[in-house]
Amino acid sequence: MTLNEFDIIQTFFNKPITKSNANIILGIGDDAAIVAVPEHHELVITTDTLVANVHFPSHTSAYDIAYKALAVNLSDLAAMGATPAWVTLALTLPEANEQWLTDFSNGFFTLANHFHTALIGGDITRGPLSITIQAHGIIPKGLALRRDNAQVGDLIFVTHTLGDAGLALQHQTLPQNILDKFYRPEPQIVIGEKLRGIANAAIDISDGLAADLGHILEKSHVGAEIIVDKIPLSHSLLEFVSIEQGIQLALTAGDDYELCFTVPENKLSQLNNNHVTCIGKITKNSGLDLHYQNGKKYDLKIHGYQHF
Amino acid sequence: MTLNEFDIIQTFFNKPITKSNANIILGIGDDAAIVAVPEHHELVITTDTLVANVHFPSHTSAYDIAYKALAVNLSDLAAMGATPAWVTLALTLPEANEQWLTDFSNGFFTLANHFHTALIGGDITRGPLSITIQAHGIIPKGLALRRDNAQVGDLIFVTHTLGDAGLALQHQTLPQNILDKFYRPEPQIVIGEKLRGIANAAIDISDGLAADLGHILEKSHVGAEIIVDKIPLSHSLLEFVSIEQGIQLALTAGDDYELCFTVPENKLSQLNNNHVTCIGKITKNSGLDLHYQNGKKYDLKIHGYQHF
Repeated sequence: MTLNEFDIIQTFFNKPITKSNANIILGIGDDAAIVAVPEHHELVITTDTLVANVHFPSHTSAYDIAYKALAVNLSDLAAMGATPAWVTLALTLPEANEQWLTDFSNGFFTLANHFHTALIGGDITRGPLSITIQAHGIIPKGLALRRDNAQVGDLIFVTHTLGDAGLALQHQTLPQNILDKFYRPEPQIVIGEKLRGIANAAIDISDGLAADLGHILEKSHVGAEIIVDKIPLSHSLLEFVSIEQGIQLALTAGDDYELCFTVPENKLSQLNNNHVTCIGKITKNSGLDLHYQNGKKYDLKIHGYQHF
Repeated sequence: MTLNEFDIIQTFFNKPITKSNANIILGIGDDAAIVAVPEHHELVITTDTLVANVHFPSHTSAYDIAYKALAVNLSDLAAMGATPAWVTLALTLPEANEQWLTDFSNGFFTLANHFHTALIGGDITRGPLSITIQAHGIIPKGLALRRDNAQVGDLIFVTHTLGDAGLALQHQTLPQNILDKFYRPEPQIVIGEKLRGIANAAIDISDGLAADLGHILEKSHVGAEIIVDKIPLSHSLLEFVSIEQGIQLALTAGDDYELCFTVPENKLSQLNNNHVTCIGKITKNSGLDLHYQNGKKYDLKIHGYQHF
């Protein structure tokens, strides 16, 4: 069976939309899609590309490639506190293999449907394997969480645990729950939505906590004090690495797609969440001050992933 | 000088927005951009990828690659009758070459500024050269031009001339005005906007008139009669090919990025435009009936470009 672009779209991507978080007037099949943003809402837009052998190893399954490509985009929406609404998919493929496309489509729609996110358009082209997704979220006017509003005295939190994804990238023979942290990261949409009106600043952790928190500090013109042995590490991770190695993975390895956010003291009582851990605070002194609970300075050795 | 992702964005892409057709609350530099759609408007969204050696020859300049990548996306907005507002750019590059990035940025912003279109975000990744742009346009509620509303009796029009781009792809030694039709196509935004409330259906011609008109026919459940020797061909084109070759290029070669649209008879008087030509009409009989003015049937030999 020879598949052309239209066959691929019809067979693998033009799925009935079971439920969407926002209004779709015209979906796949025209020159462009037509959508409507609800009244009193703003639109949040992000795009991320995954390239074979750069962002994922060549042995990665089509299901996981699709899942992760969508997850990293939804994670950016989570970091803004937005609710996912629609996505587009630009898929560049060396060949049209039916099994691969079936698996890719399954991974994509499993995650999309979970967050009631509709695929409204895209482009299928021939070339080296690469996936660019653009995600659109909605948020009530003025409530988006930005990087540039951390205030001196804010407490700094991260969601869940960090570092597992970094280990999963280094070793293929690990328990599935650790591997999943790299191959199927969970966008923290629900926590992001709950942080509206509570967090002063937020970012998702894609390049390692040190690099990503660094973006908040730079944009907000503040510094931070982080107590490295308060960074949450999973029990699974600590079965394979020392606490020191775990801290280093958390600070520098990236790919966790957890959130890092800052909350002023007077809103701490509203932050009623078992899945977040306080790891430090925003300071007036610029730069990132890393130390242990006993006061000993932590020496940061590696920077986040550099794309060039 | 070693450029990292942040340097590249700051130096070549984070340009002050001189004028935009719609409200930008937060542009480049956070996890996502924040924008607002004007009241009583809908949002039109499209995405297209250009891959090196597939969508453009390897000798194409960085300026032209950027120009065309943006143009084909804006062309989709034109085909919907939308006004361009914002775009995102996902750029995958084998290496960060300063001269190449300067030229690419110049080509990109020359066209973006011409249409008051703001770059609000993107992603720079390392990998085989490929450009995915997503364009957002706005349009008053309910006025978008779709493929699925052509009515029996509508007259069929195309803008300007067809076929030049097809010739330009075949030969590198042609006058600049013909080469430009392939390398720097002009999105027909102004004509698209004027067709709101006049045209029943519209599409842009990317795969050749026969294939693209075919999409309107299929979606609208109608047929069409085209008089092939009424298809407008440029004088420049006819200096290099016969009328027969010109017709074939227009019908099958693609890359023209002109518009094809249908207008009911009672709105013809509102279509006051010197840059459009009537080439046939929508019929009840399904399929595409191609013939000459003298009644002789035209035998279509080649289909539009197949991506797989």
